[in-house]
Amino acid sequence: MRTVAIAGVGLIGGSFGLALRRAGFDGPILGVSSPGAIREALALGAIDKGVPLEEAAARADLIYLSQTIERILETIRSLGPLVRPGCLVTDAGSTKLRIVEEARRSLPPGAFLGGHPMAGKETRGAATAEASLFEGRTYVLTPAGETPATLEFRTWLDRIGAIPVVMEAAAHDRVVALTSHLPQLASTALGALLAGRLDEADRRIAGPGLKDMTRLALSSYDIWRDILATNPAPIAAALDAYIEELRRLRAGLEAPSMRESFDQAAALALSLRRQ
Amino acid sequence: MRTVAIAGVGLIGGSFGLALRRAGFDGPILGVSSPGAIREALALGAIDKGVPLEEAAARADLIYLSQTIERILETIRSLGPLVRPGCLVTDAGSTKLRIVEEARRSLPPGAFLGGHPMAGKETRGAATAEASLFEGRTYVLTPAGETPATLEFRTWLDRIGAIPVVMEAAAHDRVVALTSHLPQLASTALGALLAGRLDEADRRIAGPGLKDMTRLALSSYDIWRDILATNPAPIAAALDAYIEELRRLRAGLEAPSMRESFDQAAALALSLRRQ
Repeated sequence: MRTVAIAGVGLIGGSFGLALRRAGFDGPILGVSSPGAIREALALGAIDKGVPLEEAAARADLIYLSQTIERILETIRSLGPLVRPGCLVTDAGSTKLRIVEEARRSLPPGAFLGGHPMAGKETRGAATAEASLFEGRTYVLTPAGETPATLEFRTWLDRIGAIPVVMEAAAHDRVVALTSHLPQLASTALGALLAGRLDEADRRIAGPGLKDMTRLALSSYDIWRDILATNPAPIAAALDAYIEELRRLRAGLEAPSMRESFDQAAALALSLRRQ
Repeated sequence: MRTVAIAGVGLIGGSFGLALRRAGFDGPILGVSSPGAIREALALGAIDKGVPLEEAAARADLIYLSQTIERILETIRSLGPLVRPGCLVTDAGSTKLRIVEEARRSLPPGAFLGGHPMAGKETRGAATAEASLFEGRTYVLTPAGETPATLEFRTWLDRIGAIPVVMEAAAHDRVVALTSHLPQLASTALGALLAGRLDEADRRIAGPGLKDMTRLALSSYDIWRDILATNPAPIAAALDAYIEELRRLRAGLEAPSMRESFDQAAALALSLRRQ
């Protein structure tokens, strides 16, 4: 791997460039992004040069797609006729099935490896990128044949401190529907409901618990639109199951089963904190 | 106000004792609690002496009930024949209507003032009590006639930094059903659902958003049993409205209305953070 191109040098893409550098990668890192993002990423040292996608495809051994999901899908289609033999295309999109399917249609066999780093911050943009973003964080990879390029990419993931977990794209999408997309919508629904029900005085009564439960509600729809659009069936199933669980609690507000629900929920919450 | 008695010297009761002391109250502070809680509160300087309820009622000008809701209801009943003329009984229970109704039945007119300090921590027990717990926090009071005792109590609330808000008991219970009880059950339902759906590998994929959304799920049912039991109708109505909101999101996963929901929810979440 002598030349790397990063398409979309925001928080994830910028951090990937910084992490590679810190881990000892000394080849050129090219950036494909908007002029503003390229400026930020250059200033930070996350990339060496901004280039058009065509130039990136002509030069890079690894093309890292860290754009929005719709842009990743478009870039994969554009890369179809451009990608060089032996080049590995990988992505960091939050849903995997549509992207893996698009890559299967548009790219040569073995040229694509789907990825989803479980890393992020509440901020966006290369300006807040950091070399340590992937350290100790799970990095989902969809199954792919072992080629020299995939093996080398995994070596670099190890070097930047990520913890790879191989998972089928459909299974990934079902799990993140539960662990990420459902919590987002549960928070958004709570915020949207209370927006219409609490006056100024009522809001003064809100405690820290409600702040926790509405932190995700601060997320921009611009990020979530693509996620919701590319994972509708698992999200709908997760919402149905959640509504059913709420109905069960609603029916048993004073029933002995309520203790079980609290105990199960506390055990899950604890297990998430032990990792 | 020369002598104060605190029934239930846990986090809230212990903090009330410490806060009174720091604010300059120099009369005796008596504690009515279990031997273990009394030991902790004495060690901390939150109370001066542990006494039975009868002795507290015979000596105190202010009796502060910071027990569980069921114990507050019992103590109010016990205080009926014991409370001295001019003594003020007040409480810190998380629901208000049942308590205010019980006080109306059991105590002389004007002897009771319902209260709910919007203060708390994730810990319990006097050992984690602190004099600053009420500082800058809303302190709901139910409407009561102005007597020398209620006016003096409000003066002490000012001195310990609390921000009193007068609210009818039923209105309080409807608001906290939305701002506190619904968020708790939304978190518990999420945790209980995921407990049965995520295996060990799946849990490694969970990010910080899910941790936020399951922090309340760590709460013990022992605290929540009384709250759920004493506020069932507002909680059921809040759950119904939440389920309806989730259904609306479920129906419009890719609809333009989704952006509105995100925007409304983000505005509510922001307004909570501006206070």
